[in-house]
Amino acid sequence: MAAELILALDYGGTKHTVGVIGVGERQWRAQRRIFAPAGADAAYDLETTLAAARALLAGRQPVAIGASFGGPTDHARGVVVRSDHVPGWERVPLQALLEGAFAAPAGIDNDANAGALGEHRYGAGQGVAHLLYVTVSTGVGGGWILNGAVWRGADGLAGEIGHTVVDPAGALCGCGKRGCVERLAAGPFMAGDAAVMLAAEPGRGAILRRLAGQQPLSGQLLSEAAAQGDDVAREILQRGAAALGLGIGNAANLMNPQRVVLGGGVTKAGELWWETVRQVAQATLVAGMRLAVVPAGLGDDAPLWGAVALAEARLGR
Amino acid sequence: MAAELILALDYGGTKHTVGVIGVGERQWRAQRRIFAPAGADAAYDLETTLAAARALLAGRQPVAIGASFGGPTDHARGVVVRSDHVPGWERVPLQALLEGAFAAPAGIDNDANAGALGEHRYGAGQGVAHLLYVTVSTGVGGGWILNGAVWRGADGLAGEIGHTVVDPAGALCGCGKRGCVERLAAGPFMAGDAAVMLAAEPGRGAILRRLAGQQPLSGQLLSEAAAQGDDVAREILQRGAAALGLGIGNAANLMNPQRVVLGGGVTKAGELWWETVRQVAQATLVAGMRLAVVPAGLGDDAPLWGAVALAEARLGR
Repeated sequence: MAAELILALDYGGTKHTVGVIGVGERQWRAQRRIFAPAGADAAYDLETTLAAARALLAGRQPVAIGASFGGPTDHARGVVVRSDHVPGWERVPLQALLEGAFAAPAGIDNDANAGALGEHRYGAGQGVAHLLYVTVSTGVGGGWILNGAVWRGADGLAGEIGHTVVDPAGALCGCGKRGCVERLAAGPFMAGDAAVMLAAEPGRGAILRRLAGQQPLSGQLLSEAAAQGDDVAREILQRGAAALGLGIGNAANLMNPQRVVLGGGVTKAGELWWETVRQVAQATLVAGMRLAVVPAGLGDDAPLWGAVALAEARLGR
Repeated sequence: MAAELILALDYGGTKHTVGVIGVGERQWRAQRRIFAPAGADAAYDLETTLAAARALLAGRQPVAIGASFGGPTDHARGVVVRSDHVPGWERVPLQALLEGAFAAPAGIDNDANAGALGEHRYGAGQGVAHLLYVTVSTGVGGGWILNGAVWRGADGLAGEIGHTVVDPAGALCGCGKRGCVERLAAGPFMAGDAAVMLAAEPGRGAILRRLAGQQPLSGQLLSEAAAQGDDVAREILQRGAAALGLGIGNAANLMNPQRVVLGGGVTKAGELWWETVRQVAQATLVAGMRLAVVPAGLGDDAPLWGAVALAEARLGR
């Protein structure tokens, strides 16, 4: 008998991934990545991903579908609330669209919850009942697993560690508050702060200046410069890591999970960054509390694996 | 048929309460308060509360027993970990002691969790599935109700909002960190900060000075002085309320509960305090999140009512 197939989709800001896998399998049968051009909208995203899915399925029908979306979603209603990057995603009934297109039950969630689910089932969170997954890249998002299931909260908005405040005297965040974890720890904000520091302090950041040349600063450039010992890059990265560590410690004191799993591009920033995150998080914990802070096991694929888990949930597995 | 009786106990720092109530009833059949003298230890506390319970029960046997304890407990094992106020409470198997003394199943928990449970079942948290209960008095403690049940976390230490950091540049807390919610918002710390301010700024705090006379400052004196318009009292209370509001907003962003219930002596500090807590908490929430911040409905009796719920849980109700 041929295996039952699951269709999994991950809608990122500019990159989408479509995969087909057998129920209970750990190896993808087929996978395709779509890089959306500038100016793409929701219609483009939907059209290209559904076409890719049809091609990968080659006439077969999936038994269930899961989708991760890089923006706020209404999991219970199966609706994408909006995208902060791509126009046209306002109140799109993605679950119903997928169910209609492939005649199978579908489940959707935002990428932080999907990432948490993916890491819990298939990655660095296996064997743990309670964990917080945090993705640190262009933003800082979080998703909870409590008693083995995603915790979404009353309005489906739980997990927003990126917009917890860890320094009320800190820099202004896009959300209007000061000193949010995201404002201090996300890649583009750190790059921006480094650029300001380079402009203000001509005697510092020689390595970072040389590495950057004429290109704009990025979180990745900061990591490279810090690895080579640049003073500005190290200062900014350490400040971001400390803010994240404090946010993690606060979250642990509130919820007492067993593990925090960190994913996203900024987690590739090197040993100084990891040491600082861990040291500050541990120093923040109340006496007697134990917490492991570990790197994600699935890398950028955590939300796609979470989509598999969302599909399996529709099968009652 | 005579009603089945529940025995409920609340072990505070210096005040203990023992009550007897019928299963399903909302009116106490009998209640006794015990004020422990200076120098009392765990043996004294146990002896006097068990004697009071026997007197209230008058020969009848309870069907279940619940106890709230003002300090860390191991709920699963039924053991008091320690008291920070009374000697002799290290690793006391309170649940087994109560079960042995009255030949009935018993459940114990710390006062923050018991308070959350009490408010959820009988007080200001009725009808809500997810809430955070915060008690603000000599310390700041917290307890979660998620999906109608106490959330204790992996080590039984969840709910520690008092030791989340909201100002890393703030005053040093007893726990070794800076700017914990408890350090900024608990009564004795606010009183101490006010005393320092009075000493440093002779031209300020005239009302507070007059009200205090020769007695040491207290949280209650601050509230009275603030109500009469004292500048120092208002500044300190507002700073504490803002710290608490930020801690509440952070907790809400992480967990998205429907309601936060505030109990403890400091919540009687007046309208300025409440307005500040609410305003800062709301301003901290991510877009789209809804949260009600309400006063406790059971006052100081929340943990005792929680003990009733702990007893009922042992009956499977």
